[in-house]
Amino acid sequence: MVSRRGRRLLLLLALALPLLLGAQEASADAVRIEHFFLVLIAILMTAKVFGEVAERVGQPAVLGELLAGVVLGASVTGILPSAGPIHDVVVLLKDVGVAILLFEIGLETDLGEMFRVGGPALLVAVVGVILPFGLGFLYWWAAAPGLGMPDGISATTAAIFVGATLTATSVGITARVLNDLGSIHTPEARVIIGAAVVDDVLGLVLLAIVSGLAAGATITLAGVAWKFAVAVGFLVAAVVVGNRLAPRLFAFIDGMEVRGMLLVSAFCFALLFAALAGLAGSAMIIGSFAAGIVLSSTNQFDAITHRIEPVADIFTPIFFVVVGAGVDVRLLLPWAAAFDWTVLGAGAALLAIAIVGKVAAGFAVGWGKRKLNHLAIGVGMVPRGEVGLIFADLGLTAGILSQPAFSAILIMVICTTFLAPPLLKPIFRGISPGPTDPSVRAGATEPPDG
Amino acid sequence: MVSRRGRRLLLLLALALPLLLGAQEASADAVRIEHFFLVLIAILMTAKVFGEVAERVGQPAVLGELLAGVVLGASVTGILPSAGPIHDVVVLLKDVGVAILLFEIGLETDLGEMFRVGGPALLVAVVGVILPFGLGFLYWWAAAPGLGMPDGISATTAAIFVGATLTATSVGITARVLNDLGSIHTPEARVIIGAAVVDDVLGLVLLAIVSGLAAGATITLAGVAWKFAVAVGFLVAAVVVGNRLAPRLFAFIDGMEVRGMLLVSAFCFALLFAALAGLAGSAMIIGSFAAGIVLSSTNQFDAITHRIEPVADIFTPIFFVVVGAGVDVRLLLPWAAAFDWTVLGAGAALLAIAIVGKVAAGFAVGWGKRKLNHLAIGVGMVPRGEVGLIFADLGLTAGILSQPAFSAILIMVICTTFLAPPLLKPIFRGISPGPTDPSVRAGATEPPDG
Repeated sequence: MVSRRGRRLLLLLALALPLLLGAQEASADAVRIEHFFLVLIAILMTAKVFGEVAERVGQPAVLGELLAGVVLGASVTGILPSAGPIHDVVVLLKDVGVAILLFEIGLETDLGEMFRVGGPALLVAVVGVILPFGLGFLYWWAAAPGLGMPDGISATTAAIFVGATLTATSVGITARVLNDLGSIHTPEARVIIGAAVVDDVLGLVLLAIVSGLAAGATITLAGVAWKFAVAVGFLVAAVVVGNRLAPRLFAFIDGMEVRGMLLVSAFCFALLFAALAGLAGSAMIIGSFAAGIVLSSTNQFDAITHRIEPVADIFTPIFFVVVGAGVDVRLLLPWAAAFDWTVLGAGAALLAIAIVGKVAAGFAVGWGKRKLNHLAIGVGMVPRGEVGLIFADLGLTAGILSQPAFSAILIMVICTTFLAPPLLKPIFRGISPGPTDPSVRAGATEPPDG
Repeated sequence: MVSRRGRRLLLLLALALPLLLGAQEASADAVRIEHFFLVLIAILMTAKVFGEVAERVGQPAVLGELLAGVVLGASVTGILPSAGPIHDVVVLLKDVGVAILLFEIGLETDLGEMFRVGGPALLVAVVGVILPFGLGFLYWWAAAPGLGMPDGISATTAAIFVGATLTATSVGITARVLNDLGSIHTPEARVIIGAAVVDDVLGLVLLAIVSGLAAGATITLAGVAWKFAVAVGFLVAAVVVGNRLAPRLFAFIDGMEVRGMLLVSAFCFALLFAALAGLAGSAMIIGSFAAGIVLSSTNQFDAITHRIEPVADIFTPIFFVVVGAGVDVRLLLPWAAAFDWTVLGAGAALLAIAIVGKVAAGFAVGWGKRKLNHLAIGVGMVPRGEVGLIFADLGLTAGILSQPAFSAILIMVICTTFLAPPLLKPIFRGISPGPTDPSVRAGATEPPDG
């Protein structure tokens, strides 16, 4: 069966090859619509084929999509143009992809759950954000790993960004592994999922604060307080609006007869909240995340979730591929001329901080009070994903992170994701499932693309 | 009930207004992601709201989307930028929209039906293409309506383009009206639908030939023959490949586990065929139309149709809005400084040709042989739609049609669509339905966006 599957995958790769070559030739020319189409095809099909291979070897699809980006990027094949009109279009589509990704995560986030998670999960979340952020910040600021610093960027700014990329857990990967192991209803799993919801929100708020840095603002207490207020304001508004206006608005929209009205309205709702968040000086994704939370309380939730899925399938891979394309593999391969040990070293150091920070957070939870497996909780929080990638992408685009620093961060994100399944399996095998808990929503345990 | 609906629509328009204003302010700036999002929201929500209003007053949604484009265009509000980076992105997204629109039409076209339609429908189709094309060509070439001619474009080239815009019937509008009247199973309706499928294909082949003109080629017999061969070759390949390779390829793809694989593959299949058709020097849309026909013979047809729908809901309104935005209303309003009677006059002349050509085609069918209502068939073929708009858009973009000529053509397309429902209702009320015929596919009677 495996060999048959292997042959099938090879066949698929062989089918994809002419497309890739066509797209490469295409990107050398001026923009012609055909060439734009070929680049789009190369992005989407490579992402899906690599995603499929990743899933077949027990890894999350998002890892495959990132590697697809590495392959399409300037340092390997250069199929994805790194400048010019097609690049500009792809970058805008990538931003639509991030908005829809966070909108889907928002749709599947039960904000009420945040207030119900209770002490242990809250503690894990807060410690699990503060510790990796603090350690990452100190490492980058004090050790100054010599990865180059873009002009006019202070060490403090860069260190804050690096610290921020270490904070948010990608619960999708852990949830899927625990689901496969039948451990999703253990008390440990509930703490992990509750904490991950909280630290997603904390990570987004942190991103909103940090995104001011990306726009070149200096760090002042008033500035940070304002960013914090805007970000929290959006989320509070989400709860308030969600319980009042949105159900009526979308019931009204649902009464319309023209084809696609509900989907287009939901799509525009996500983009509108993103644009408003951006115009208010916050991070755009906190807006689309809030839009998702708002719409999760409407009666049209199921229809919206169902119809936005194909749209997300087209747009979100563009984000992961563009992020992957930012990695310069010539810095990482020992036989390449540009090879630089410091990049691998910095990546390894960040990986160590990422693991230590979250495992320590696992041990912070009510030590001795409850019979919880602290190691299981800590390891379950290790995988970083979408939010970390968004930080890294923003830092690179804004010129705060150098190319080597970006590559080191991506090593950290990829390795935490890669390590989680093999580490979680032996640890959770010894833990017996508790009583099943219907308050853990199916949506929260199977996020869209993780 | 009507007043309540009216109030609701007013509320929706009021909600949309701040977005429109925001987008207008946005387009004045440089590209910022927020501004791109606001323009996209303005395009999609205006299209949907106008489409809804159109449906409420008994008109097809596509008419509303075109009018939404007129409102957003440079000659009214200018919310849709007519140049600059956001304009460039929107134009590329519009081309994705056309490709997906034709892919959907292809999915719903039963090519076998073309060979089964029999004599009457074939005759109506052929006469209904030749007559409007000939009359339109002669009018534009001989009368030279003085609407300005772009530099370096011969009167013959422009006249061929104008003639071509008059050919293809948009069966969607007629089918919906007949469906509402319960007349979809009359012999007349079957002739109309059969003929419309044939003349869609004839129109696309004509477009493929004409698109060489758009690229600046001169008209030679060998050139026309080559274009014809490529266009027909694509459609023949569609049938051959459709029955052989595609079912196996898509069964294989359907066995993949990663989320979105089937949809992304179908989407890329449509774009790939479009790009190949374009690179072969034919019209891109004939490629995506062929891709749709190919995939309609796979076992994954239902899943693909279902999942591509939300993607089409996002992309296709962009096409209709961009086309509508090309209309310069200042040429059409008597109180405007740029008002030009010749534009309205040319539009009225084209409208007359459009109606006379198709009604005459209705009378061409086996005159006296069968007891068919010839007027009903002819009037049923009158509405022009997607394919005519694609011709007009291509002509304007390639600089073959002047702005006034484009506006005159859009008057013709909009009026044929607008006139069809009120004309068809009284005519079909006197016709009794024949025996129900299962060979008329549901898909063929309810096209995607018409």
